[in-house]
Amino acid sequence: MSDNNTIFISPAQMLERFTTILLELGFTNENAHACAKIFTDNSIDGIYTHGVNRFPVFVQYVKDGHVQPHAKPTLHHKFGGLEQWNGNRGPGTLNAIHATDSAMKLAGEHGIGCVALANTNHWIRGGTYGWHAAKAGFVFIGITNTIGVMPAWGAIDSRLGNNPFVMALPYKDEAIVLDMAMSQYSFGAMELSLLKNEKLAVHGGYTKEGELTNDPAEILGSRRALPIGYWKGAGMSFLLDVLSTILSGGLAGYEITRSGIETNISQLFIAIDISKLSNNSVITKTVESIIEDYHQSVKADPSKKITYPGERVLNNRNKNTANGIPVLKKVWDKIMEL
Amino acid sequence: MSDNNTIFISPAQMLERFTTILLELGFTNENAHACAKIFTDNSIDGIYTHGVNRFPVFVQYVKDGHVQPHAKPTLHHKFGGLEQWNGNRGPGTLNAIHATDSAMKLAGEHGIGCVALANTNHWIRGGTYGWHAAKAGFVFIGITNTIGVMPAWGAIDSRLGNNPFVMALPYKDEAIVLDMAMSQYSFGAMELSLLKNEKLAVHGGYTKEGELTNDPAEILGSRRALPIGYWKGAGMSFLLDVLSTILSGGLAGYEITRSGIETNISQLFIAIDISKLSNNSVITKTVESIIEDYHQSVKADPSKKITYPGERVLNNRNKNTANGIPVLKKVWDKIMEL
Repeated sequence: MSDNNTIFISPAQMLERFTTILLELGFTNENAHACAKIFTDNSIDGIYTHGVNRFPVFVQYVKDGHVQPHAKPTLHHKFGGLEQWNGNRGPGTLNAIHATDSAMKLAGEHGIGCVALANTNHWIRGGTYGWHAAKAGFVFIGITNTIGVMPAWGAIDSRLGNNPFVMALPYKDEAIVLDMAMSQYSFGAMELSLLKNEKLAVHGGYTKEGELTNDPAEILGSRRALPIGYWKGAGMSFLLDVLSTILSGGLAGYEITRSGIETNISQLFIAIDISKLSNNSVITKTVESIIEDYHQSVKADPSKKITYPGERVLNNRNKNTANGIPVLKKVWDKIMEL
Repeated sequence: MSDNNTIFISPAQMLERFTTILLELGFTNENAHACAKIFTDNSIDGIYTHGVNRFPVFVQYVKDGHVQPHAKPTLHHKFGGLEQWNGNRGPGTLNAIHATDSAMKLAGEHGIGCVALANTNHWIRGGTYGWHAAKAGFVFIGITNTIGVMPAWGAIDSRLGNNPFVMALPYKDEAIVLDMAMSQYSFGAMELSLLKNEKLAVHGGYTKEGELTNDPAEILGSRRALPIGYWKGAGMSFLLDVLSTILSGGLAGYEITRSGIETNISQLFIAIDISKLSNNSVITKTVESIIEDYHQSVKADPSKKITYPGERVLNNRNKNTANGIPVLKKVWDKIMEL
């Protein structure tokens, strides 16, 4: 993103603009700042689809009443290291941070903790909670369901969500974070490719005629995104939905799809406190050795770096903190008009 | 499998043959029967690559001393719902059942339980433990590392395992079980396709020249299996290895790869006791509704059934219990010679 249509916004400027907008929408000072910071941090990390590019959608959800700015999660049920919370349709980011913190607290007491969250809103970027937990010393697994965006394997109508799945662990002062949707590309990523007039690197879904394609416009038209690994990602998406639904007692993906609005979603947060492990003192060294071997991979293209999940985020973070966050001018114009 | 090269073996006959072989290898009566039953059950379930077709490989591992028939897992460390066990290179199937049972026991006490297992052997079919836990009323997540069989994304040498990942939950008297390796096809599945002289349905890996192919012989030659979802499955494989390694304190995938033998592997077993949830009494109904919606999918090919993970296993189980287990004659001949 360095063409004529891109401008650079400093993190402070972005944070201030987002905060101002949320205050105008009736958020408390604390919530406006916390929520604006997550969207800004996602942008600093280079996850623009779940940062600055997504912010106007979030604002619309607040305006439409799907996101309740003042709602807070409430504990519904508890047994040992397992808790069920109601998100009360509050901001998905703040609910998810709260659930992650609760899972970490349970893990501190039980070694492992699990928080299931019903009736929440889109957590925007799952990696946010992976980084949050891992930087505090926890292994993290996160699951969410979503509105239907891809078909069951062998089907043509979209009854499965892309149901992002997150796994993270601490590494030195940072983290290793995998954050992936069950579709080969998220619709956010396809929208960005379209915005940049680019084709996808591999097949991302189907045309309306049922042919595999790497044209984001075609897939945005058919709404038939391809699951990762064909039947495997479709199957995993099914399980992620069922687990987040039954453990939270919240709505299943099909109910969200039928409602037509991606709200009242169901999520799952698992944390493991690695300070409770016998080998805690050598874990960093162990991970370092794994990465060292991984980086010795023989490259298919010598000009490209082999990276582990989360590694490129660190590069983006350094670059965008120093140079400002690259934003498509038309996106920023839209945000200035909000 | 119903051509001239296929014979049908009754479950009782297969169980007896496997048990006899294991007794001759020095297994105790109890262990021989338990281990033979898992290989037989996997075959009944139609997972031939991890049942009857795999049995000779397991026998060779015992003969070579990699699997210690009498070894039992020992508890190394415990905190709350979290335990670290040493598998002492015992039979991977028996160690994994033990670890699953231990995770279920912890879940009974803490709602959620996590058992990490170091120095174990191949669990053969991850679904075994998913079915085992789910039929007893638990949500289950299982992870294992393996020897390197596929490259990092952008690399050509195989430093990543296919690191199977399992998720399961109870459903009526049965279960919903997802059991998937991070490669598009397991090498077992590709070997079976080769044995049956069939091509793969989609690209499964690369030729030695670096081209994507659906020819199992080419991929078995290059040893370059394709990760599910390209970079996504490669990233998930990396995380699954790191998590099973650091939580168990056992060997990482690269260490197993360097040893040249797939032994001393690291695994993770998480169980959640759904009887401890507030919505326990309505979970079956909830899952039934999800499946009902799923089965209403509009089919791309009206002659094909849309199935959820584990659904076809039930059909295989009924069919193979009634008609006998279809086995390639040359496979059974080999087993009769063991």
